Amino acid sequence: MPKFMDVHSGFVGVTEEQLRAAHERDLAIEEAEGVHFERAWLDPESGKVFCLSSGPSKEAVLRVHEKAGHPTTEIYELPVEVE
Amino acid sequence: MPKFMDVHSGFVGVTEEQLRAAHERDLAIEEAEGVHFERAWLDPESGKVFCLSSGPSKEAVLRVHEKAGHPTTEIYELPVEVE
Repeated sequence: MPKFMDVHSGFVGVTEEQLRAAHERDLAIEEAEGVHFERAWLDPESGKVFCLSSGPSKEAVLRVHEKAGHPTTEIYELPVEVE
Repeated sequence: MPKFMDVHSGFVGVTEEQLRAAHERDLAIEEAEGVHFERAWLDPESGKVFCLSSGPSKEAVLRVHEKAGHPTTEIYELPVEVE
């Protein structure tokens, strides 16, 4: 299953509770699109959020985020991963 | 230990082998800065690389990347993570 990283901007000063609530809105509806949001990280100083997900396509990831109320134009497919 | 995400641009068409070689240059020298690069993901189409690390500071992460030959101005500290 392809992996994706999406990047959101403008989340300056967002709290852990607010990020968790946003992430849970994704988790509640992701199954309909065959997507799973694995993890999300927040830098509240710059307002950046990074979400790591797996799913069938970039468009499916975007649809979940749109329905959950936080669309983004920045979604990257990650065919290569190293540890 | 704080976590960080750094973002690199311009890696269009880079292969898994090339990403692995770059990542291994970080791993070889990270200890001197108390940093650990946990994972790196590549989108060879857009040329974006995302690196997840832990370490004492953004500056320490940058110093490792600089010495390894791939500095970036985009390093975000991630005090909040949700699953």
